Amino acid sequence: MRELDDLIAAFAVIGATGDGGVCRLAATPIDKAARDLFVHEITGRGLGLRVDAIGNMIGVAMLAPTSQDTVIVGSHLDTQPTGGRFDGAYGVLAGLLATKAVMDRAAAHPEKARRNLAVANWTNEEGARFQPSLTGSSVFSGSLSLEHAYALKDGNGVTLGEALAAIDYQGSSPLELRPVRYVELHVEQGDRLERAVADIAAVSGAWAARKMSVVFEGQASHTGPMPMAERRDAMRAAARAIEALYEEVEREKAGAHASAARLSIYPNSPNVVAARVQVWFELRHETEQVALAIGDRFLARIEKESASLGVQVSIAADERRKTALLDPDGVTLIRHTAEGLGMKALTLQTIAGHDALALQKRIPASLIFVPSRGGLSHNPREFTAPEALEKGYAVLVETLWRMVMAD
Amino acid sequence: MRELDDLIAAFAVIGATGDGGVCRLAATPIDKAARDLFVHEITGRGLGLRVDAIGNMIGVAMLAPTSQDTVIVGSHLDTQPTGGRFDGAYGVLAGLLATKAVMDRAAAHPEKARRNLAVANWTNEEGARFQPSLTGSSVFSGSLSLEHAYALKDGNGVTLGEALAAIDYQGSSPLELRPVRYVELHVEQGDRLERAVADIAAVSGAWAARKMSVVFEGQASHTGPMPMAERRDAMRAAARAIEALYEEVEREKAGAHASAARLSIYPNSPNVVAARVQVWFELRHETEQVALAIGDRFLARIEKESASLGVQVSIAADERRKTALLDPDGVTLIRHTAEGLGMKALTLQTIAGHDALALQKRIPASLIFVPSRGGLSHNPREFTAPEALEKGYAVLVETLWRMVMAD
Repeated sequence: MRELDDLIAAFAVIGATGDGGVCRLAATPIDKAARDLFVHEITGRGLGLRVDAIGNMIGVAMLAPTSQDTVIVGSHLDTQPTGGRFDGAYGVLAGLLATKAVMDRAAAHPEKARRNLAVANWTNEEGARFQPSLTGSSVFSGSLSLEHAYALKDGNGVTLGEALAAIDYQGSSPLELRPVRYVELHVEQGDRLERAVADIAAVSGAWAARKMSVVFEGQASHTGPMPMAERRDAMRAAARAIEALYEEVEREKAGAHASAARLSIYPNSPNVVAARVQVWFELRHETEQVALAIGDRFLARIEKESASLGVQVSIAADERRKTALLDPDGVTLIRHTAEGLGMKALTLQTIAGHDALALQKRIPASLIFVPSRGGLSHNPREFTAPEALEKGYAVLVETLWRMVMAD
Repeated sequence: MRELDDLIAAFAVIGATGDGGVCRLAATPIDKAARDLFVHEITGRGLGLRVDAIGNMIGVAMLAPTSQDTVIVGSHLDTQPTGGRFDGAYGVLAGLLATKAVMDRAAAHPEKARRNLAVANWTNEEGARFQPSLTGSSVFSGSLSLEHAYALKDGNGVTLGEALAAIDYQGSSPLELRPVRYVELHVEQGDRLERAVADIAAVSGAWAARKMSVVFEGQASHTGPMPMAERRDAMRAAARAIEALYEEVEREKAGAHASAARLSIYPNSPNVVAARVQVWFELRHETEQVALAIGDRFLARIEKESASLGVQVSIAADERRKTALLDPDGVTLIRHTAEGLGMKALTLQTIAGHDALALQKRIPASLIFVPSRGGLSHNPREFTAPEALEKGYAVLVETLWRMVMAD
């Protein structure tokens, strides 16, 4: 579908890293450029623009002017530092075109639409610059306070509130209508659809996650003359802990996913034994008990192993995301819609976090996946073929049309 | 000795970290403040100031105006991010006072001094901001070209040449005299003097070192849905390698020292499996063959282990410092001098790098150690008692006096 491909290409220019990827961290000048282009695309299609206090952008199509009820479709325009072209942008831009398509269909059948429709770009979904992730959608759903969100700091100490003000996206025109349903279209970022040679996944729920930020405190000393037995090396303790997490997951053989992807090191000089290393660990599993149990065993193990190195362990954060259920009626509707269009559809759980999971805390939410080649995402080579993107778009349009016709 | 203690305290204020330590990275505005105070202290004592192109500062006492021959005493005023008050500053400031003391003695005995005397502050000894370390003394000794030194970049891409120009210490008045001997007084930064309850070490030479900067290249991917078996995790490979270095050293049981103290991680986002991790590894041993052999085994091991994780290893730098011998006559002179003053003296090798090792490539050089409490250095709690500092100063004055009297 030419218009969708062109839009994705136009947004991929903003923050392009030169290797096919995109680096568009939340609330940066690059993010502002993408937001400004999105304003242009929203208003050019006759939608009404709303920007709320946390910078969520919403383009509204008043299909049923006598109703307050509104279906929202959306995703996010921010990316990881090593982001691809599709993660987030696909859902926002397909959502925009689907909103226009449903608007046109409603204009031709004025009696049919019973609800309004809006397309959203949620602020800081990725959590690359500000942790935790899903910030804008969590504020919208009421599970995170605006004050808390404004106070989140990036690695340089800049708050999200300051960053949004600097790019002029601390809005004052929130959505005045009543949200009743949410739908999000996204690339899978895993390889289950590809392996099953399927077109569409209706997502029924989410894996549990445990995100542990652990601080290892040793003692700065000279890397040369300080006797080895006297050293309290925070880097060695952190390195052992990273390997320990993977070992615990492998020993369990329960299919958990794990990572240690971010470190903060002090003083990070080649000649000073590290005094302090902070590591961000993640554990994910389809059941919460398994994620918690592996995490508990891991923490007990590294505390003991670090103590043997004279290094003290403290837990800076221990965020636990429970498993989540998405609206079962939405799953049925999406599968029916896809199968009615002649596509092969699956029901899957999502392993990654998505704005739909935050929205589900307020309104029934649905999530639709299309395949990702090789499961690769958060990578410049993230790829989904144009035909696969178009299938997702077609399912989205029909799903939204049915939703706006419902009472 | 009140004047020495006061001077050390005055310099410890410049870049004070509030916990007793000092952070005074080379060629920063903080370093400039220390340099400016050093200019004041040099000129206030009637010495002539010279600053060369790499920012080495030299205060000259013309004790034998008909001679070009000059003995240099010195050390460095830059520190590690977690530096103590004594590492470097002690040698520069005791050197300054010793130069003044020898100058006064020469004035009382005008026939005795056959050589001139100068005190030096060498640029970027620590190598914390710019690698490699010993920059100013290596340019002075001719083992590093000025062009190469100017081009060294810090972590933000600023070159040493730019940084020196910015603080106005790219000088144009090099020492015009002929250096014939170098002496450096320093805290030990290890615990051998303390364990032996000795006052002074005459340093006879230096351990060999191998400094390997290794890049681990994996593949960026989502930390959630990407199947564990498909990941190419550069962080896991780096963590295993860090532990592997320590294991290889422990297996050898040869008393080598090892560290991995600095990492550079890309993209360093909690949600992206690391694509690239660079680790700075160090190995030190009193014989070069042992340091090389452990390094070779280590590199072969991590290449194999990383490959099993789908991570590629490349060597960005492999700097080999041979063992070094310092001038044997200087060792004898220092031990005689200390023993003549009633002190207990040892002969030791240095494990850490020092400017004296760079100078020895051009002229006979000597290095004198005083004890460090607990061997702790590159740490705010680095400590040497005033009485121990004064003993080192007394040995330095007598050593310099004998050296300027020699032909």
